[in-house]
Amino acid sequence: MTHALSTDLYQLTMMAGYVQTGLTALATFELFVRRLPPHRKYLVCAGLSDAIEYLEGLRFTSEEIAYLRGVPELGGAPASFFDDYLPNFRFTGDVNAMPEGTVAFDDEPLVQVTAPMPEAQLVETALLSMVSFQTSVASRASRVVRAAAGRPVIEFGARRAHGPESGALAARAAYLAGCVATSNLEAGRRWDIPVSGTMAHSWVLAHASETDAFTSFASLYGERAVLLIDTFDTLAAVDRIIAAGLRPSAVRLDSGDLADLARVVRARLDRSGLQETRIFGSGDLDEHRIRELIRAGVPFDGFGVGSAISAVTDLPSLSAVYKLVSIQQKSGDWRAVMKRSAGKATLPGRKQVWRITQGNVARADLIGLHGQPAPRNGRPLLVPMMKAGRRCATVESLAEARARTQASLAEMPIDVADIEGDRHYRIERSPALDALHRMATTPPNAVPEP
Amino acid sequence: MTHALSTDLYQLTMMAGYVQTGLTALATFELFVRRLPPHRKYLVCAGLSDAIEYLEGLRFTSEEIAYLRGVPELGGAPASFFDDYLPNFRFTGDVNAMPEGTVAFDDEPLVQVTAPMPEAQLVETALLSMVSFQTSVASRASRVVRAAAGRPVIEFGARRAHGPESGALAARAAYLAGCVATSNLEAGRRWDIPVSGTMAHSWVLAHASETDAFTSFASLYGERAVLLIDTFDTLAAVDRIIAAGLRPSAVRLDSGDLADLARVVRARLDRSGLQETRIFGSGDLDEHRIRELIRAGVPFDGFGVGSAISAVTDLPSLSAVYKLVSIQQKSGDWRAVMKRSAGKATLPGRKQVWRITQGNVARADLIGLHGQPAPRNGRPLLVPMMKAGRRCATVESLAEARARTQASLAEMPIDVADIEGDRHYRIERSPALDALHRMATTPPNAVPEP
Repeated sequence: MTHALSTDLYQLTMMAGYVQTGLTALATFELFVRRLPPHRKYLVCAGLSDAIEYLEGLRFTSEEIAYLRGVPELGGAPASFFDDYLPNFRFTGDVNAMPEGTVAFDDEPLVQVTAPMPEAQLVETALLSMVSFQTSVASRASRVVRAAAGRPVIEFGARRAHGPESGALAARAAYLAGCVATSNLEAGRRWDIPVSGTMAHSWVLAHASETDAFTSFASLYGERAVLLIDTFDTLAAVDRIIAAGLRPSAVRLDSGDLADLARVVRARLDRSGLQETRIFGSGDLDEHRIRELIRAGVPFDGFGVGSAISAVTDLPSLSAVYKLVSIQQKSGDWRAVMKRSAGKATLPGRKQVWRITQGNVARADLIGLHGQPAPRNGRPLLVPMMKAGRRCATVESLAEARARTQASLAEMPIDVADIEGDRHYRIERSPALDALHRMATTPPNAVPEP
Repeated sequence: MTHALSTDLYQLTMMAGYVQTGLTALATFELFVRRLPPHRKYLVCAGLSDAIEYLEGLRFTSEEIAYLRGVPELGGAPASFFDDYLPNFRFTGDVNAMPEGTVAFDDEPLVQVTAPMPEAQLVETALLSMVSFQTSVASRASRVVRAAAGRPVIEFGARRAHGPESGALAARAAYLAGCVATSNLEAGRRWDIPVSGTMAHSWVLAHASETDAFTSFASLYGERAVLLIDTFDTLAAVDRIIAAGLRPSAVRLDSGDLADLARVVRARLDRSGLQETRIFGSGDLDEHRIRELIRAGVPFDGFGVGSAISAVTDLPSLSAVYKLVSIQQKSGDWRAVMKRSAGKATLPGRKQVWRITQGNVARADLIGLHGQPAPRNGRPLLVPMMKAGRRCATVESLAEARARTQASLAEMPIDVADIEGDRHYRIERSPALDALHRMATTPPNAVPEP
């Protein structure tokens, strides 16, 4: 499965048109998020690893081509499109992108694709769904991790994800953003992410008594056992653990007033010599609820978070788009283009984003034109990822991307990286980009890049 | 890929425990939605086809087993679990479920799994992510379709879905719920769903002029051509189409004041003899926006809807759960169980749901115990889908499921099926279920099913 058909019909319709009419010059498209809602102050890039794998492996199978031949809307495509073009199709373009884990902002290109027009067009849909979903999960997860203030956050959201595959991808993005583990075995196997788990209510219900359930689990898993204590009555369950002389590594609370219960549970455990038994919280948690618990000094040692991360409940769809910004002319020069649609206008031209730092702190990002001189103390964020259809960077490990998230967030002003407050990071545009933008706001539709 | 590891670690931890301690009796788990938010009045069941395929094909590959052997948390599992149990694992259980397209409500079991405890436990995570996601998409799509009041709705959301696979599944659920087509080619190929598409802004930007872009597209696709007219200026684009003598089958508006623009576009097209050219609307549409446009008499002939459907933006995560409700004893009798967790208590016992109709109108649903006599005019909604691990019903086509959505909604009282208003459908519980529930609210933890 190479995802060749994981795209919109109109991409094929247009591809056939480009091929037919010879519109196969190099074109640059940029993927960016239009705008974040006010409560979200930054993005954490993710999904690029998937995107590069997709681009490298992109092929049309004969079965897929047979299907396309029968699509009525493609009836206008020339026979050579099906006979020659699609069977030989490869992605041959270049990709510049922000590496996974980079903190980014709206309007900034996260991925920049330069390829012959039909190739660059085809990949829009899959790139958007890969990059924007995984970026959206990583961005949310990083907020949850921050709220937990050093306590481990485990991603628990497979069951609430948009299908099993989406759950695995969410687990990866969550780990990349700072979660310490996932409950998802498929993600653990694929990407070597630490897996973690406790027990379910069904384990307790399946036994003759709660004490039996706990004792049996502890005898199997010993010091690794984490006991779920809210199936019937949380405090009674703690008393049963103590009475049975069990020494679980942790107990998990999943319902009720978590703050009150955790305090009493802690006291009872401590009184009984179970100071080493940690308390783990779960149940519809998000960054706000976790911050509240921690600010109130509730003695939780870690959290399990599900749908807030895996289904990105506060922002299930980023307004990510992939827009044509420049086309190479026969002369070799590039002409920048932009949509002027009401409320949906774009910025023309091939861009670069520089992060401008002072000491160890990021002060602003500058969005400018690709090729313009770098600003003082500016570090380019878009780096070459593919050349002529092959990945050009050494394959980065997930651990490296995870470290980048941490470093990239650490560099941000504290009130930008924090989950609260309305201090937003400063994004500037270079004079050259502004000038190009002004030129492109009226016809002609394409203006020369400087 | 059989999705065997698309599950939470704790399912394997518990499975190993059940196998080790001989807790392998038949158990029944039920999948249901805890509660819908007030603005959502019903569910449209979807995802069962995927779920049955998953259950039938469930196997652990040797690579997956090798991975599991190395998971530290499974260190307490006996060697026979990896050597014998997992390599020979098959799902051997029974499944009763509401067929896809059935209108359902919170608290009603949508899927009921009866299998040896370890098997029934393992499948929780994947079943939840398959059924709750697809049900969530179908439920939203049916609202959008209703708002469109007979005008075609095309699902456009692949790019906003939670990954490419999620996009394909969303397209299927949207079609099941009444959308007439999808832009998603992979969904078209897999499930023979009609595909549809227009053109992108990049097509227009790639040409020397908008007129060139339109003329070129029309010459390729003739009467099928749908022209996107908002790249620069919507009204100027219409004038260009008219001036060039083109006769597109439709034009698409994607930005600006859709109501005002559509009226003027309609008038200009009509004045120029293009009465046959339809007007198609898109751009962050949902059921409320579409209803507003239609109530105001705006002359749209159809709509393209993206993230509202594919990412279920108003309800990205259903509170769907899968809970143990009964366990068979050595005697052959069943003992019902329930969680009593604060705010998360469940209903005990194996259930059936009957839809009670009067004439052609559904008056109420009765949730009762499996095996109790059917109420007068009551039709059981949970029907056998698998017996002993094999599907027992003839495989239902997507077209049949799609027809069921329509019939099932048509049977609902109008103000329940409608997207507005707060009239909720009546859900009753049988006296036998109520009695069992009362018995189970205090210890002992398991009570005999009547």
